[in-house]
Amino acid sequence: MFNVLTKNFCKTLKIKRPIIQAPMAGSIVTPDFVAEVSNALGLGSLPLGYLSLNEAKRMIHETKLLVANFSVNIFIPSSVKHPEMLHFQKMLAHINSYRHQLGLESLTTIPFEEEPLIDDWVSLIIEMLVPTVSFVFGILDDKNIKRLKQKGIYLIGTATSVKEGLMLQQAGCDAVVAQGYEAGGHRGGFLANHNGLVGTLALVPMMADALTIPVIAAGGIMDGRGIAAAMMLGASAVQMGTAFLTCKESGASALHKQLILQKLAEETCLTNVFTGKQVRCIKNQFVTETERLFQEDEIPVYPIQHELSQELRKIAKKQNNFACAGFWSGQSTRLARALSVKELMDRLEEETWKALKG
Amino acid sequence: MFNVLTKNFCKTLKIKRPIIQAPMAGSIVTPDFVAEVSNALGLGSLPLGYLSLNEAKRMIHETKLLVANFSVNIFIPSSVKHPEMLHFQKMLAHINSYRHQLGLESLTTIPFEEEPLIDDWVSLIIEMLVPTVSFVFGILDDKNIKRLKQKGIYLIGTATSVKEGLMLQQAGCDAVVAQGYEAGGHRGGFLANHNGLVGTLALVPMMADALTIPVIAAGGIMDGRGIAAAMMLGASAVQMGTAFLTCKESGASALHKQLILQKLAEETCLTNVFTGKQVRCIKNQFVTETERLFQEDEIPVYPIQHELSQELRKIAKKQNNFACAGFWSGQSTRLARALSVKELMDRLEEETWKALKG
Repeated sequence: MFNVLTKNFCKTLKIKRPIIQAPMAGSIVTPDFVAEVSNALGLGSLPLGYLSLNEAKRMIHETKLLVANFSVNIFIPSSVKHPEMLHFQKMLAHINSYRHQLGLESLTTIPFEEEPLIDDWVSLIIEMLVPTVSFVFGILDDKNIKRLKQKGIYLIGTATSVKEGLMLQQAGCDAVVAQGYEAGGHRGGFLANHNGLVGTLALVPMMADALTIPVIAAGGIMDGRGIAAAMMLGASAVQMGTAFLTCKESGASALHKQLILQKLAEETCLTNVFTGKQVRCIKNQFVTETERLFQEDEIPVYPIQHELSQELRKIAKKQNNFACAGFWSGQSTRLARALSVKELMDRLEEETWKALKG
Repeated sequence: MFNVLTKNFCKTLKIKRPIIQAPMAGSIVTPDFVAEVSNALGLGSLPLGYLSLNEAKRMIHETKLLVANFSVNIFIPSSVKHPEMLHFQKMLAHINSYRHQLGLESLTTIPFEEEPLIDDWVSLIIEMLVPTVSFVFGILDDKNIKRLKQKGIYLIGTATSVKEGLMLQQAGCDAVVAQGYEAGGHRGGFLANHNGLVGTLALVPMMADALTIPVIAAGGIMDGRGIAAAMMLGASAVQMGTAFLTCKESGASALHKQLILQKLAEETCLTNVFTGKQVRCIKNQFVTETERLFQEDEIPVYPIQHELSQELRKIAKKQNNFACAGFWSGQSTRLARALSVKELMDRLEEETWKALKG
């Protein structure tokens, strides 16, 4: 009952259900989780962002012991090497005031961690024979695209606008995730264009018209209705994050799941206060207060702000502290469900058929 | 091939195609235009916003001479009587600097026009036996809802969030337009909630789950793919604005049509600088400069700012002045087409079937 686009995509990716679990970085997605999704005939995605090469290698290894077909996601490293120091002291004091609330000592500088080089990420992926790689925050360079393609690795870029989609296709991507405005977590795009916040329903057909490679719809899709709608709009598949985040097996904190399941749909916001890049998350005191005290362009850029707030967010999450932690979420939280991955995947297929049949 | 929801809605509204032409206020929609849409088996909507009661009466009369089945749209009058004067002189000077560029004399005060009372709008609608009424910017009061319902007039409210949708249903509306983030022109909602900018793909299924009355999807829908997607999401029908704006018969200026047809998709923005209410439009100098000079909360509220900028916008449009005029548009401009209304309506049906068949 799937259309030709979807059938072809599924065949290429060796999946039966055109559903990609979004690579939610942090500790939400474990190798077990990825395997659950792939075993339920979708494509599980292991997020490598924030990990060291060694941690990533161990995670990929663990995943491969469980399942053959999966993808990994990498962050294209930013070119920011020297922080702009203009508002830095003000932000440091602000972060420290929150750290004190949680019993953490003051930071005096950025707890900087060297990002692995992109060449090393690609070497690891090739070494580990990962079948599919997706990436965000940029375009993989020519040399590394060639290296991956020579090994037959399927390459998925992430675009928040048609312009970005065209650039990713031109660079040699095999498919593009069209990430709409509704999506939770980081905006995966790379062009500095705040108008590039296009709703999923508008973005997908425009992307499908402009591109010749498959388009994967993302943003706000939580059930079979959303999957069927994405197919109508010309998508070959969907990528879903928040719908998986509240699954029983996900590593999201109990508070995080509870906040989403409590249907705070209309209270998500887009903000750069946590990481220096725009993130869709649930509004809390840290967001409101930081936005009140700082202009948007006074927030240090990614990864500086990410590194400044990382420990704060981690400890706040552990302490179930709503005010200080970052709770990524898409807009359709009213549709969230607390199911197992298998139950969710079965429901998604059932609902998609039901919607398509009318 | 339509599902039960859609079939029932079409039957109730005496239409064959589940397509409502959005009531775009200004001089875009004429009685002829409304008749074209209704004659093409959809529902044409006559916008009464900005009109006097006499003008509205004449427009309804002209429409009735052409077609029996149509709707009118009214603005729920705002309760703002006394402008906040805090930033008023600064805005007056700003508007005057633009007026001078167009050869207009300075304003010294607000060119205030008394808005008709809502009771008088309702009396007019009843007197003219209009079959369907939609409204934006608020909830019609109990008394007037009763008056309209006693006459069997079908009542459509406008919501940008589930919360607003529930309030409109509770008030007695027969259906609700779920206006997503992608939509062009004014945000039709009424609760002060800037987070209530929910993408159409997220908003429609959440609204459909929460409400028992029909949901009409709006925002970003431009072709049959969008209509099919809206049906998958649980909508009973769609409301489309920008897709009709570029039709040959529309009264939009040549420049307005050209800007949209040139595919400026990712360059629309949401701003309150034109009217004091949020509008999605094409970004131009007036938007950029006003936003640079004024904080969002320094812009006089609707209808003050609307009245201050109204003549400026009107003359700028006549002069084909891109910098000063307001060009309302939704996000999917890459999908815009310059067809006749009849051609567009035929294509929409054809494309919807095609999408649904896979």
